[in-house]
Amino acid sequence: MISSLTLILGGARSGKTRHAEGLIKALPAPWIYIATAEIWDEEMRARIERHKADRSEAGWITVEAPLDLAGALEASHPVLVDCLTLWVTNLMLGEHDIDAATDRLEAALARRTTPTILVANEVGLGIVPDNKMARDFRDHAGRLHQRLAQRADRVILMVAGLPLTVR
Amino acid sequence: MISSLTLILGGARSGKTRHAEGLIKALPAPWIYIATAEIWDEEMRARIERHKADRSEAGWITVEAPLDLAGALEASHPVLVDCLTLWVTNLMLGEHDIDAATDRLEAALARRTTPTILVANEVGLGIVPDNKMARDFRDHAGRLHQRLAQRADRVILMVAGLPLTVR
Amino acid sequence: MISSLTLILGGARSGKTRHAEGLIKALPAPWIYIATAEIWDEEMRARIERHKADRSEAGWITVEAPLDLAGALEASHPVLVDCLTLWVTNLMLGEHDIDAATDRLEAALARRTTPTILVANEVGLGIVPDNKMARDFRDHAGRLHQRLAQRADRVILMVAGLPLTVR
Repeated sequence: MISSLTLILGGARSGKTRHAEGLIKALPAPWIYIATAEIWDEEMRARIERHKADRSEAGWITVEAPLDLAGALEASHPVLVDCLTLWVTNLMLGEHDIDAATDRLEAALARRTTPTILVANEVGLGIVPDNKMARDFRDHAGRLHQRLAQRADRVILMVAGLPLTVR
Repeated sequence: MISSLTLILGGARSGKTRHAEGLIKALPAPWIYIATAEIWDEEMRARIERHKADRSEAGWITVEAPLDLAGALEASHPVLVDCLTLWVTNLMLGEHDIDAATDRLEAALARRTTPTILVANEVGLGIVPDNKMARDFRDHAGRLHQRLAQRADRVILMVAGLPLTVR
Repeated sequence: MISSLTLILGGARSGKTRHAEGLIKALPAPWIYIATAEIWDEEMRARIERHKADRSEAGWITVEAPLDLAGALEASHPVLVDCLTLWVTNLMLGEHDIDAATDRLEAALARRTTPTILVANEVGLGIVPDNKMARDFRDHAGRLHQRLAQRADRVILMVAGLPLTVR
């Protein structure tokens, strides 16, 4: 099993997670689901429960890693990271150094010996947001996507649940 | 004439309607234009009049269906639905059951015996909106697009007036 | 050297400028960088300085053209216009006639005898903005992109730093 890296980008409700689950389930179990979400309201909790129900069958191991993504990637099984966008949000809200965290993430990816699938929201194709924090967030997310796409073997843009191959 | 289903997605002013009109006019007339817009202000009226002027030649039959899209699809000629996004908006504003309406839409599509072209706005590729209604709208639109793309023979993403084939 | 026209679209931090620079540097120097930005705050100044640092090597000539893009395109060397989105913004803020300015831009492009690369932000794939000015801006940008894509030899959508060929 090669240590391939797949980056799945897409908009809201574009089927990113479902596509990622399909890809990882073509590999031998167990599959590590790295959840980056921090639950801070009921809307978020409902979204997470809905996603969790999709992974109720045997074979899945869920790991929560809202900040230490590099640490969670030490796992020796195929992993699905869902998603980078919440991870960047958590880093920003906690006022962490995003460039340094991305360096650690890249180093951890370089050490992986099994396939890795990263899911991320494409958020930069709308009107420039009014508030500075949203603009900074778009910049951080965009830079992160570029760095990871650079080292990915496969980059996919999801459109209405269908994969469009970018690389 | 086969009962093919085409889904045309795209952003604001990306040439979705024009492309859809080009596709349907390659088929024998008459062509049914199903307008889902409800006019609630002058800006909307201006947009609609601009689109209507593009369809002034013989061959077009315009049908207004802000809510009962399934009923309008009983027509036995090629149809262009413009657009699903306003239909979802109308359903939300009227507090209708969107999943049930989508079930009826899918059943009507399954009964079609002539080509159908559906136009929809891709709205999920920007920053997460501040207000809950906009977030819910993105979710409804995204889920609808996934369901329809699943059964479509052809899915197109318009970029600057040019079609990018997704399926 | 043929007078080819390339249109590079993409979201925020999608690597548009870097990709455009790579394309133009495959051509013989000098390369004209037409900057359309008007500096109106520190955030904008920082962005511009960051971009400028990427073009510090010999071969680059920077021309500022916040409004008279057609005039700047009279240059007889390969040009990179960065970006159309700020140009449209400047036209709107100055209450200029955007259609007339686009006519002049198209006429200038038709007279070019060396390659031209145009960079523009795709801004139409998010939720419909609340304020009228942002909606008008999306419409202007979208129409401009369609007109230029129509005459472009090559249209590229940048995704996470990678080019997706639209035409």
